[in-house]
Amino acid sequence: METVKVDLGVRSYQIKIGEDILANLGAYLQELDIGSKVLIITNPLVNSLYGSEVKEAIAKVGFDVSKALISDGEEYKSLETAQDLYDKAVGVGLDRTSTIVALGGGVVGDIAGFIAASFMRGINFVQVPTTVLAQVDSSVGGKVAVNHPQGKNLIGDFYQPKLVVADKKVLSTLEERELKAGLAEVIKYGVIWDQQFFAFLEKRIDEILNLETDAIIKLVTRSCEIKAAVVAEDEKEEGLRAILNYGHTIGHALEAVTNYKKYRHGEAVAIGMVAAAKLAYKRGLLDSAALERQKELISNFGLPVAYHNLEKEQIIKALSKDKKVKNGVIRFILANQIGKVIITSDLTEENIRETLEELGG
Amino acid sequence: METVKVDLGVRSYQIKIGEDILANLGAYLQELDIGSKVLIITNPLVNSLYGSEVKEAIAKVGFDVSKALISDGEEYKSLETAQDLYDKAVGVGLDRTSTIVALGGGVVGDIAGFIAASFMRGINFVQVPTTVLAQVDSSVGGKVAVNHPQGKNLIGDFYQPKLVVADKKVLSTLEERELKAGLAEVIKYGVIWDQQFFAFLEKRIDEILNLETDAIIKLVTRSCEIKAAVVAEDEKEEGLRAILNYGHTIGHALEAVTNYKKYRHGEAVAIGMVAAAKLAYKRGLLDSAALERQKELISNFGLPVAYHNLEKEQIIKALSKDKKVKNGVIRFILANQIGKVIITSDLTEENIRETLEELGG
Ligand SMILES: NC(=O)c1ccc[n+]([C@@H]2O[C@H](COP(=O)([O-])OP(=O)(O)OC[C@H]3O[C@@H](n4cnc5c(N)ncnc54)[C@H](O)[C@@H]3O)[C@@H](O)[C@H]2O)c1
Ligand SMILES: NC(=O)c1ccc[n+]([C@@H]2O[C@H](COP(=O)([O-])OP(=O)(O)OC[C@H]3O[C@@H](n4cnc5c(N)ncnc54)[C@H](O)[C@@H]3O)[C@@H](O)[C@H]2O)c1
Repeated sequence: METVKVDLGVRSYQIKIGEDILANLGAYLQELDIGSKVLIITNPLVNSLYGSEVKEAIAKVGFDVSKALISDGEEYKSLETAQDLYDKAVGVGLDRTSTIVALGGGVVGDIAGFIAASFMRGINFVQVPTTVLAQVDSSVGGKVAVNHPQGKNLIGDFYQPKLVVADKKVLSTLEERELKAGLAEVIKYGVIWDQQFFAFLEKRIDEILNLETDAIIKLVTRSCEIKAAVVAEDEKEEGLRAILNYGHTIGHALEAVTNYKKYRHGEAVAIGMVAAAKLAYKRGLLDSAALERQKELISNFGLPVAYHNLEKEQIIKALSKDKKVKNGVIRFILANQIGKVIITSDLTEENIRETLEELGG
Repeated sequence: METVKVDLGVRSYQIKIGEDILANLGAYLQELDIGSKVLIITNPLVNSLYGSEVKEAIAKVGFDVSKALISDGEEYKSLETAQDLYDKAVGVGLDRTSTIVALGGGVVGDIAGFIAASFMRGINFVQVPTTVLAQVDSSVGGKVAVNHPQGKNLIGDFYQPKLVVADKKVLSTLEERELKAGLAEVIKYGVIWDQQFFAFLEKRIDEILNLETDAIIKLVTRSCEIKAAVVAEDEKEEGLRAILNYGHTIGHALEAVTNYKKYRHGEAVAIGMVAAAKLAYKRGLLDSAALERQKELISNFGLPVAYHNLEKEQIIKALSKDKKVKNGVIRFILANQIGKVIITSDLTEENIRETLEELGG
């Protein structure tokens, strides 16, 4: 088993990464200073696959465990679902010392974390992420939220878990498309932070796509290390944390113009990373070899490198509504080599238009 | 004008206390590092009295000010009202740099603070408290919340304002009963922390009840200083902050058995403080003179020192449901002299029964 520490002073915590470690969950929880009541929040699909195992693992060491199911899907990451969960938390008698365990992907983790952050002004929170995206990204760093009809994650908090437990085993039941979408964020870590990790991904494509244990544990571990390092420097997203948005600027615009229906988040980010690489190349920041390597790795992971049947002008309009726009200028995160990024506002609309032109398939 | 600093590292802020200082609100906001958009949250009553003045004061220095009204009353400190406020925040286009100004009593302050804490994971928050309770207590210290049908303040956060502005002027329109209820918390500060302040209250009863400027500004200032000192030591209520619950244990039980209808919170706390003083006397912690001084000051401020038409056993039952009960033992905050308290679990049910017997009028 690998352990990654997220260094945040009194809010520090461990991420445990391994194969078939769900069975130890009870023991891990016993190491925390928490009360006897535990509420597992999950959804019907994940529950049918891992719900009993996780509940049993926690109950067998003596915790008083309840479960709350929320409907599966991004549209249920809402204040309405939160209200049901508060009712449940009250119903099972959670107190200040109780613990909420999120068992699921990013949707479950985000809303369960929001409940943990706000119930009685904050109770213990443990993440058991079950998608690639959740294991390498959303379960680490303390961003918790629900959506508002007018915008994703508009209602939320920074609230760190007390523990994250990522079991490689659960990834085997993921739909292929979910698996690949999660890998987009992994490629991102290589580009923004770690050339060697990027090279590792290039070399191990088959093992990764076949979910071979060593490769996946290494991949999740290194991803968590990188995210942890960024978050430790900038917990509340006031500076450095922006680099985690590499590929996300155009990615978000693509999601917005397709109403979050056509692309999985990671797919949109994949195209966004190609766009960012092209922009960096255009501005003379990145050489063509580094651009091609990014495109190739993205493509080899089965992720899209271009968009189809979308209006360029629509994408530009969506870009201009981005939260990162200040006085009409968009800040972009661009790589100047694989493993290093800069943040720049020094791009012309022409650069962006051209790039989108080239990307439209 | 008096200024009290709440010392919380990067989250430190000032409380400005004075007569007729609402007009300077715009200037005060300009001193903060905040964006151009401001949303005032208030209720119809407070709005009719001070809404235009406050809006004008903020708008005249160039801020883009909107207003959101919530219905008046504790029952509207709910997640449903919060949902409306999120809609409003989105509707007027608040962004991460925007500011929410709470203009009202504790109800407005608590819910507005919860919105500020959770909208976009936290935006700027300024309190303009307009009741005695809000000026001396609820606006300071960062507890924000909404109620759940099953319990008060069950959904909330610790979220500090960037500034608190307490204008003595607004207290003149308060109902007499609200004014007096707020004074219960003021007496509490004297008992738990500051014998001299207690003596000041004893000497200035008439000036205080007549809202004479000097006395009120001194009273609000010293109250804020004491609350600030406690909060600075224990922001998240892990230890010392418990002493702020002096009088609240039996107070809460009285509120609960009367469904939060019969007593204003401060009235219940007043009776609770008499109960606590009697308990301390019974246990030999406090002398009879100090007990009598408390009773007398409470009574001189027009607050109740006994309850009527309530079943003692009901109160005991409500006590046993208190959050502060651990393994069937209730922790009480008791004064061992005026100006000093201890926390003790060393009370028999007999002590409590007797005390309630004596208090039942
Ligand atoms: N908090 C953060 O820092 C952060 C970062 C990135 C994304 N997010 C959020 O994460 C969410 C997306 O997360 P996601 O991609 O994990 O989606 P998801 O949670 O919707 O999961 C995707 C699908 O996989 C299913 N699933 C989960 N685990 C499974 C398993 N082991 N086997 C089979 N099926 C499984 C789910 O039921 C769901 O149908 C978004 O709401 C996004 O806003 C948060
Ligand atoms: N956050 C904290 O630390 C904390 C501490 C104590 C209490 N509280 C909360 O505070 C709330 C009670 O606050 P409250 O006692 O101020 O009650 P409130 O906010 O309901 O105000 C009482 C009444 O006075 C009116 N009012 C307010 N200002 C006025 C003015 N200047 N002139 C005339 N009328 C005015 C209000 O409209 C309301 O009808 C409760 O919800 C309680 O939970 C919070």
